[in-house]
Amino acid sequence: MPQLGLLHGRAWTVFLGQLRRPPGAVCIRAVRSHSQGQKYLQVAEALFASQLKPQEKSNFIIKTPKGTRDLSPQQMVVREKILNVVVSCFKRHGAKGLDTPAFELKEILTEKYGEDSGLIYDLKDQGGELLSLRYDLTVPFARYLAMNKVKKMKRYHVGKVWRRESPTIVQGRYREFYQCDFDIAGQFDPMIPDAECLKIMCEILSELHLGDFLIKVNDRRILDGIFAVCGVPESKFHAICSSVDKLDKISWKDVRHEMVVKKGLAPEVADRIGDYVQCHGGISLVEQMFQDPRLSQNKQALEGLGDLKLLFEYLTVFGVAEKVSFDLSLARGLDYYTGVIYEAVLLQTPVHAEEEPLNVGSVAAGGRYDGLVGMFDPRGHKVPCVGLSIGVERIFSIVEQRMKTFGEKIRTTETQVFVATPQKNFLQERLKLIAELWDAGIKAELMYKNNPKLLPQLQYCENMGIPLVVIIGEQELKEGVIKLRSVPSREEVAIKRENLVAEVQKRLSES
Amino acid sequence: MPQLGLLHGRAWTVFLGQLRRPPGAVCIRAVRSHSQGQKYLQVAEALFASQLKPQEKSNFIIKTPKGTRDLSPQQMVVREKILNVVVSCFKRHGAKGLDTPAFELKEILTEKYGEDSGLIYDLKDQGGELLSLRYDLTVPFARYLAMNKVKKMKRYHVGKVWRRESPTIVQGRYREFYQCDFDIAGQFDPMIPDAECLKIMCEILSELHLGDFLIKVNDRRILDGIFAVCGVPESKFHAICSSVDKLDKISWKDVRHEMVVKKGLAPEVADRIGDYVQCHGGISLVEQMFQDPRLSQNKQALEGLGDLKLLFEYLTVFGVAEKVSFDLSLARGLDYYTGVIYEAVLLQTPVHAEEEPLNVGSVAAGGRYDGLVGMFDPRGHKVPCVGLSIGVERIFSIVEQRMKTFGEKIRTTETQVFVATPQKNFLQERLKLIAELWDAGIKAELMYKNNPKLLPQLQYCENMGIPLVVIIGEQELKEGVIKLRSVPSREEVAIKRENLVAEVQKRLSES
Repeated sequence: MPQLGLLHGRAWTVFLGQLRRPPGAVCIRAVRSHSQGQKYLQVAEALFASQLKPQEKSNFIIKTPKGTRDLSPQQMVVREKILNVVVSCFKRHGAKGLDTPAFELKEILTEKYGEDSGLIYDLKDQGGELLSLRYDLTVPFARYLAMNKVKKMKRYHVGKVWRRESPTIVQGRYREFYQCDFDIAGQFDPMIPDAECLKIMCEILSELHLGDFLIKVNDRRILDGIFAVCGVPESKFHAICSSVDKLDKISWKDVRHEMVVKKGLAPEVADRIGDYVQCHGGISLVEQMFQDPRLSQNKQALEGLGDLKLLFEYLTVFGVAEKVSFDLSLARGLDYYTGVIYEAVLLQTPVHAEEEPLNVGSVAAGGRYDGLVGMFDPRGHKVPCVGLSIGVERIFSIVEQRMKTFGEKIRTTETQVFVATPQKNFLQERLKLIAELWDAGIKAELMYKNNPKLLPQLQYCENMGIPLVVIIGEQELKEGVIKLRSVPSREEVAIKRENLVAEVQKRLSES
Repeated sequence: MPQLGLLHGRAWTVFLGQLRRPPGAVCIRAVRSHSQGQKYLQVAEALFASQLKPQEKSNFIIKTPKGTRDLSPQQMVVREKILNVVVSCFKRHGAKGLDTPAFELKEILTEKYGEDSGLIYDLKDQGGELLSLRYDLTVPFARYLAMNKVKKMKRYHVGKVWRRESPTIVQGRYREFYQCDFDIAGQFDPMIPDAECLKIMCEILSELHLGDFLIKVNDRRILDGIFAVCGVPESKFHAICSSVDKLDKISWKDVRHEMVVKKGLAPEVADRIGDYVQCHGGISLVEQMFQDPRLSQNKQALEGLGDLKLLFEYLTVFGVAEKVSFDLSLARGLDYYTGVIYEAVLLQTPVHAEEEPLNVGSVAAGGRYDGLVGMFDPRGHKVPCVGLSIGVERIFSIVEQRMKTFGEKIRTTETQVFVATPQKNFLQERLKLIAELWDAGIKAELMYKNNPKLLPQLQYCENMGIPLVVIIGEQELKEGVIKLRSVPSREEVAIKRENLVAEVQKRLSES
């Protein structure tokens, strides 16, 4: 399994180049006067020009849409390594793959995301169905379960989602980003799947070597119970819950102010809430809340506390309880959660003394949503679900930052052998050799030139980290051999032409 | 490398179930009266109801958007195997990965696709930029090169693209589908990268065991030359080219009729075209065209023929020339091609006598587009490109069809070990055991029940193809052992509790 923390090298120059380049926007004149090229191009340009209104004929910007980006080959390598860790873990826990379309019928997404619904990208009405780009992978999963009447499923899904947020790209927040979700659907004995979800979060965050982390857990039923016993009118549960949700960003004083002044809560009610939501701790806090004279009178809260107690038991068996904190301020934004909720945050201590602390917020989150599938079912049949989502984009930012700091070297190709020649008129021989290598499954490249010079060919291998060079020239052709050169040691040996593939495979298996 | 033709088993029952199920649409009442569940659900439903106009409160259909589909776990496994073959081949040829956003600025896509531009999905104008979903991976690649001033790059890209076509799903045509592209950008000596592209197509189609195939090649310059020497007015080149493009679907008689009656070509001009575009053959046809008294007078055609001659030389060295046919009727729809074009078709002879012939059209295609990057460059600087796209969705249909016919068995999880118990009150022991396995990187599952019966646990392993079971009960706990059961042979042995991980790893490495 790739261990990102252990990558070596000096890739940071490459990365710096990639990352510090301004968004890469270039102006182009939509209609160029000096074009001479192919007819097709001219026709296309003429059509183009004819469609443009005069004021648009001037410059336009070549860029990616706001909040989106291309991933360069270097970034793709890092992304692939991270996704590998995540998907391997999901598979280790027995999950099946699933894929859903990038867009859904608009009404499938309607009223699933609370205040965030305005961030959904809609497609233009071009006749036919009204469509929206998916906002997460959870609602499509619930739709899939309901549509196919699946009552039980453990699945993972890695895919892009889209949200029209104000992009704050420094924090690794984009309008297009990957989500990696793992969910368990089905009616099971309490807290066993929930504990597995938390275990998975711990495994992934540990394997990615992101430094110390903490998983905050809470339960929607406990929050509701608190609001009830503190005297919040039921009509204000939602508003007050979203104030509580801000406690990771602003102080209790400010949250209290919002509750009282903006949301019209009685000051003494706010104070009672404050006593609760500022608490966090381990399993002992669960016990303490069980003893709480007010909260212990609330049925919902007791259910939530009972489940949390069981959850902590299982987490202790899994050996991860010390990574988990019962945090009464955790509320989570999405409407569909009904029970346990959780969120993993990186602790701010940098892993290495040289590193700048990086505020990345939560890197994984999830919870129980027992009602969502039922919203899609014609008879309202429920399929209880619990799941988690790994914030790979944020993790990606952190790993990039790390690699910049440590100058880790990344190979962007996997090429094993380069086929070179020191002489002119050896293209056909090189092509014959490389076809043999390809047909044997060996990763090989050559220069697309009839008569390349030897030095640039060898330099390319050094630059790209290609370990082996096969060299053919007049001498070799005459003697029925080829030269095999090790790029790191620069040693060369002649081997029989017919042993080429076997010898290369031997060398590659040894290294 | 997975060889799909060699998959065994009896998965076809599973597949039949998946595939023959009608599109899975279920009606749901948007607002259900008998809902009792969680408050959050009620609130969401109330909001939902308040937004719907009365007539919409009735039934709506739970389905995926027209022309799209979910991929079930079985389908995901097949897709992953196919993509593995394709991506491995791209990497074998030294390609780097690249990712671009799902949508582009609308103007980036404008006038790149000729008549097909109407099939582009636009996003709704929600303020800000006008965006469209990408229609292929080629235009985003050209945009990337121009935007980052990249002059040379060999990249692959696997990603979804979207086209508002009338879906004819039986043929594996969808509105959302994967493309797998490999492209070589840069100024190189002629036909070396082009020959590699054709070699790649041959490697992939061979490895996927899709049966016999043929790659048709032509050159846009030869087509233009033919039109010119036959006397087609230049203004009609495009229209006549698109008539020629239909020759793989309709007869020459019908194409000629269209040229003369619909497009107003003189009958003798059409006849002259007919003499050419009905020709196909190998390198000897290239030679023949060189000798053609009319065509040999046309500069563009001669350039094209010269390149094709060189191409066939390289393909002969690569050992794939017999898979390639010079076909003067090949025209390709997209506007941006400027030189060599090619398209791979499966030959209709079924691979196995039992199989139904399946018409799937082309399964891979590509060509040279030397002008596209220049359209995005502020100074019109060109970056010559050549590339190919593998039609994985069609390949996917064929492999599915094959698996149905042969009843090949697919595992949808990779679980290696199941942790079971025959007794009550062993949940904590099972959790402890499974955490050990997970932490050792072993893929393991258990039943999410406090007190499961043994038989369903063992049956689950049989159904899912899990090879090993770890069993813990009272007897084992007392003796400090666990039982290891082989699912295929049903043999059980007792091993020391502390040797669990080592023993499991040994067993797995042997199998």
